Amino acid sequence: MASGDPAKGEGKSAICGQCHGKNGISIVPIYPNLAGQKEQYLVLALQAYRSGERVNMAMTPHARKLTDEDIADLAAFYASMDPSGGGIKHTSKTN
Amino acid sequence: MASGDPAKGEGKSAICGQCHGKNGISIVPIYPNLAGQKEQYLVLALQAYRSGERVNMAMTPHARKLTDEDIADLAAFYASMDPSGGGIKHTSKTN
Repeated sequence: MASGDPAKGEGKSAICGQCHGKNGISIVPIYPNLAGQKEQYLVLALQAYRSGERVNMAMTPHARKLTDEDIADLAAFYASMDPSGGGIKHTSKTN
Repeated sequence: MASGDPAKGEGKSAICGQCHGKNGISIVPIYPNLAGQKEQYLVLALQAYRSGERVNMAMTPHARKLTDEDIADLAAFYASMDPSGGGIKHTSKTN
């Protein structure tokens, strides 16, 4: 899967941010931080939730609707974030 | 599950570090960074690998051997680490 566009991913992340935090630091203790996470790992995790290989009450309904491009963009977006929660530091592929 | 002891977790993390990095920043692109991750999420993930709820060729054989205390200590250890990979900042419960 080609690497996604972090800026596009940011535009698709509103729902994700409700649990994983606007800055990628989860506001729910049992949900993982995503900021600065490995891009390829995030792609695999989202694919697993979409396919049903991984099942989670919160993740499954959202992941089911994602396209390959959505997954690549969201993974690129969160991977580009400051792992300490300082927010976005992505360099968009469109600029 | 009671919160674990990061210092004990450090002592149990040698094998984990081979993939997830000594500083908790994974050296394998498809494996997640663990540094600064949510402690409760890490406990749930390790429990899922131990029970077989989650299956992974690399994780399953290691997770199967873990005790509840091991899981709590490892989760506390990685949760205490600097998410940017600066290494350990845990304050051990034994001092």
